[in-house]
Amino acid sequence: MSVATLAADQSVCPPLPVLGRDVRVPLVTGGEVTYAALDYAASAPALQRVWDDVAAYAPYYGSVHRGAGYLSQLSTELFENSRAEVAAFLGCRPGDQVVFTRSTTDSLNLLAAVLPAGCRVFVFETEHHAALLPWPAGHVTVLDAPRSPRQAVEILERALADRDPHGPALVCVTGASNVTGELWPVRELAAAAHAHGARIVVDAAQLAPHHPVDIAACDVDWVAFSGHKLYAPFGSGVLAGRADWLTRARPYLAGGGASRTVARGGDGGLDVEWHTTAARHEAGSPNVIGAYAIAAACKALTEAGFERLVEREQRLVARVREGLAGVPGVRVLSLFGDDAPRVGVLSFVVDGWNSSHFAAALSAEYGIGVRDGLFCAHPLVRVLLGGERDEPGECGAPDGERSLNAVRVSFGAGTPDEHVERFVRAVGELVANGARWLYRTEDGRCVPDGSA
Amino acid sequence: MSVATLAADQSVCPPLPVLGRDVRVPLVTGGEVTYAALDYAASAPALQRVWDDVAAYAPYYGSVHRGAGYLSQLSTELFENSRAEVAAFLGCRPGDQVVFTRSTTDSLNLLAAVLPAGCRVFVFETEHHAALLPWPAGHVTVLDAPRSPRQAVEILERALADRDPHGPALVCVTGASNVTGELWPVRELAAAAHAHGARIVVDAAQLAPHHPVDIAACDVDWVAFSGHKLYAPFGSGVLAGRADWLTRARPYLAGGGASRTVARGGDGGLDVEWHTTAARHEAGSPNVIGAYAIAAACKALTEAGFERLVEREQRLVARVREGLAGVPGVRVLSLFGDDAPRVGVLSFVVDGWNSSHFAAALSAEYGIGVRDGLFCAHPLVRVLLGGERDEPGECGAPDGERSLNAVRVSFGAGTPDEHVERFVRAVGELVANGARWLYRTEDGRCVPDGSA
Repeated sequence: MSVATLAADQSVCPPLPVLGRDVRVPLVTGGEVTYAALDYAASAPALQRVWDDVAAYAPYYGSVHRGAGYLSQLSTELFENSRAEVAAFLGCRPGDQVVFTRSTTDSLNLLAAVLPAGCRVFVFETEHHAALLPWPAGHVTVLDAPRSPRQAVEILERALADRDPHGPALVCVTGASNVTGELWPVRELAAAAHAHGARIVVDAAQLAPHHPVDIAACDVDWVAFSGHKLYAPFGSGVLAGRADWLTRARPYLAGGGASRTVARGGDGGLDVEWHTTAARHEAGSPNVIGAYAIAAACKALTEAGFERLVEREQRLVARVREGLAGVPGVRVLSLFGDDAPRVGVLSFVVDGWNSSHFAAALSAEYGIGVRDGLFCAHPLVRVLLGGERDEPGECGAPDGERSLNAVRVSFGAGTPDEHVERFVRAVGELVANGARWLYRTEDGRCVPDGSA
Repeated sequence: MSVATLAADQSVCPPLPVLGRDVRVPLVTGGEVTYAALDYAASAPALQRVWDDVAAYAPYYGSVHRGAGYLSQLSTELFENSRAEVAAFLGCRPGDQVVFTRSTTDSLNLLAAVLPAGCRVFVFETEHHAALLPWPAGHVTVLDAPRSPRQAVEILERALADRDPHGPALVCVTGASNVTGELWPVRELAAAAHAHGARIVVDAAQLAPHHPVDIAACDVDWVAFSGHKLYAPFGSGVLAGRADWLTRARPYLAGGGASRTVARGGDGGLDVEWHTTAARHEAGSPNVIGAYAIAAACKALTEAGFERLVEREQRLVARVREGLAGVPGVRVLSLFGDDAPRVGVLSFVVDGWNSSHFAAALSAEYGIGVRDGLFCAHPLVRVLLGGERDEPGECGAPDGERSLNAVRVSFGAGTPDEHVERFVRAVGELVANGARWLYRTEDGRCVPDGSA
């Protein structure tokens, strides 16, 4: 697909306006350029629409659930409406709960805190640390990386069938990998889980911003995602799904809002009655602006036509894949094979390059923001890089010698074609000509190479 | 102090501009009026300065700690500078950590999660639920309400001296009550705690917005507060203080950001090395905007001259006390006596009135937003109302018969004198003339009384 073709298509479905689209950044080579935010998988820029909605609401901000004043009533309604909007966006079933958390990490830690006694958790080693680490020690089965979606289902089925005792179990799996962008067979894994008497939670941090999620249609038990990856970076996340485990467990946070009544007990201690709604796990004053921002993003994506946004993003994915395939020495990382469907998230390594230096060059010479490192998915990246499991290497730290980390480019609803074109051109030029500077990323300084 | 005096003084130290200062709300009696936000103790409006700073930063928002791009570098610097600003605002000691949480509730739940083994926690029954409830069951000693600051110190000293075994202990105490606004003798309680080998954390949710806090000068171990009460309602809070318990304990949230390295272990499980900085307890993408907003508020209060703001607020407190004292049948709630020093938070009951109806009338007839209920401090309010400990009654629910709850008025740096004057006038008129409507607050409707 040529640049000309992309430009023509863009008029059909333009990118959604985002904050920072006009921000210009200095180049180490002189002058400045419009910043190309290609690190959506870490944090996406806010949709202009989300910002506008937040700005319009902010003067009306008031305490929720608690105040008698007009603005408190309004804020309470807005907060609970936001919950309903998110439920609709996710295709929740009647009776499902939408709990506002602070992030996907927080959502999965919450779920870990409400597991029934003796519950065994099954996770692939390919998960983000947020999905790998929250589970109670001694109750986790880590599954080896599958090399196809079908193998993923087989590995899971075997592990679930073999579990002893055959008690309560939870499967935690990503909807789309934060490293490769590859889609996981959520519906098939859910069917497998349920067939073996297990529940399933989908880490939708990378899925929800790029692809419609339908809890009921996929028949998953819970979905977790973050506002800051869904164009709503105001400190909120979501855990949505079945109420029963949530309602039965101790509150995740203890405090006001979660407690219905508190009284001194006969023994001098405290008798507490907890709420049984989502409030049970939302102690403290809720982050109203954060919740409203997420709801605004859900609405904006829906109203823009999510399917059209997906189509457009897939065109960008194809362009990046095609572009990188044309550069010698660039290897795109993949678990399920080059043709596996994926969202706008791709990681790669470049022969002879330290990934940190490569990412620094993209920033300093082209004004392109990507991420380098192990992407908080250390075991997965090590599998993808060839299995150097004995040498961890800190996330993002350059090792100088060989590629123990990778470069990740990621984009979404706000990405103009030009950013992707610039990125493809930059990769080609850097590989062909080398960087003009030697980048010492340890202390953030750029030192002239001299040999450039 | 007369209205004329207040107006004259106002020119000396005007209120700080806040969002929503021009919002007009409809009155049930017809017409509309500028909203008087007098529920600061629940959630304060954002300072205009905080909003402006957030708005200026928002286009430059990027992922922190992780990205190679210009905006990620800038956001990381801004986030870590925010931490340093908060440390300076609180008078932190060298080596103290500032952890960004989501609220005071979250901060105290975090501290509860890092207690050393066998640690006993001492709390007065007069605390907010956020300070009463997070502690491990069976390890809490609930202390009876003191009736003077001196008695508070005596009760605490006795309890600490009597503890058996004489192991690690934590005292959790409010800096200023969220019900009465009364200041607690933090410095003296800290001295008592330390003399008995205990640590102390101050719930500064109501103190920090109204009064300078100095961790080093007060010699307290930790301080917790919320952004949404400190004019920065973007979903963030703070726990600041000694690093040792924080560094030794398991991470509060497990996930990326908190983990330094993760690798498959020999047993097929996971070997994790955690960070030892504040990041240890901040897993997931930090709420950069929330943290920056808090730092902006700290800076705004400091630059405006916090002592002058305190002085101005004290003038408003005096005006409310004087005003309420002049209305028959109004009883201001107090633990330490009518003359006890307090911040801009006062609760009261009115003879013959259900507090929920009174609060609803203030809103509907005067455009004044206050709060009614038990203020997430049920045991305290029951003590203040006369000790009906056997009839809890849900927070905010009207009981129809007698006052099991109260009305709270609270204000701060953004409150114009007019709001306080309107409030005092409204209380007088409602008590003298009754409400013009019968307020059924259960379902939010106002029903005409007919007899009005």
